[in-house]
Amino acid sequence: MSQRIYLAGPEVFLRDPESIFEAKRAICRRYGFKGVSPLETHLESDGRPRSEVGWMISRANEQCMRSCDLLIANLTPFRSPSADPGTAFELGFMRALGRPVLGYTNVDSTLVARMTTYCGGKLPRRGGNGELEDLDGLLVENFGLVDNLMLQGAVVSSGFHLEVVAAAPDKRFTDLLGFQRCVQQAADALQREDPAHPQEAFST
Amino acid sequence: MSQRIYLAGPEVFLRDPESIFEAKRAICRRYGFKGVSPLETHLESDGRPRSEVGWMISRANEQCMRSCDLLIANLTPFRSPSADPGTAFELGFMRALGRPVLGYTNVDSTLVARMTTYCGGKLPRRGGNGELEDLDGLLVENFGLVDNLMLQGAVVSSGFHLEVVAAAPDKRFTDLLGFQRCVQQAADALQREDPAHPQEAFST
Repeated sequence: MSQRIYLAGPEVFLRDPESIFEAKRAICRRYGFKGVSPLETHLESDGRPRSEVGWMISRANEQCMRSCDLLIANLTPFRSPSADPGTAFELGFMRALGRPVLGYTNVDSTLVARMTTYCGGKLPRRGGNGELEDLDGLLVENFGLVDNLMLQGAVVSSGFHLEVVAAAPDKRFTDLLGFQRCVQQAADALQREDPAHPQEAFST
Repeated sequence: MSQRIYLAGPEVFLRDPESIFEAKRAICRRYGFKGVSPLETHLESDGRPRSEVGWMISRANEQCMRSCDLLIANLTPFRSPSADPGTAFELGFMRALGRPVLGYTNVDSTLVARMTTYCGGKLPRRGGNGELEDLDGLLVENFGLVDNLMLQGAVVSSGFHLEVVAAAPDKRFTDLLGFQRCVQQAADALQREDPAHPQEAFST
């Protein structure tokens, strides 16, 4: 049976999320995986209070993640210099379950570079020790990473590397090159683990 | 032995994180818990490349979370209309381990209200169905919640409610009333589970 990949990312917020999830599922199929979108669960939410619907979706997504074997997160900066916090939550969730987590971003810059822009072009230095701060005096992580170290660290600890793509601005949430490279990484890892049973991608 | 509470939140980025963590630990002690800060792990990082230091901290924090019994997350909006993605990651991590997760925010407003400000005072309506969008055409969740439904949903599924405090703007990352209320919630839950062994807070 195909391994199931949970498709985490802010594309649930797009106007036509189904078309992007279908494109992601098609890529997964090509490599012998089954892509699973958080939108696949049908919820009977008619007539319930809005907050109740929120809890239902939350529980359904948690259950869906538990049914999956690995996760690929779209960590493209979202309404901020960093990734969508819902996606970050899901990345942590699957990481804690010990399942492989992979990720990509469609913006090719470091967190420090984006924070510099966010702070108007220059980051203040923290007194004496040369660390960087934002305008509220909060430290800006300066490890040369693409985003918060917990996010990228989880991918690295899973044995993978974050895929970074410089997508066209109007394709920021829809470009799938980074996603495809993640699926390729997952397929390669699976083949290394079990060379006798290569994924479909390697037998065609 | 005291239950261990992982202290998740962006206060690691403050200029004096130790004083806030010490204040949090003191509150935990009053209720019979042991507060555990992610900064407590000593890392031998001298001479390592910056990114390596990032991975070391990530692994140490993951290990620290696994050693804790529950988590209280500071979900105060951080450099965006939403919570810090590192904190969101940690919330998801502990939730997946099945350990109780609690949370608070020091900004008393809904996600929709903050997104309205973020978009310049008005949120576009998505064609026909009346849903709300941001200026990139991405859906704005409208469940009357304080933040992304995965974050608040995890707290609710744990049997708790998110503590919301309208802190003074200059105390946004340091006000501890919401934190204290979370510790109180955790203590109450523990007492309900095991009324024969109430926490210290109830015996003094």
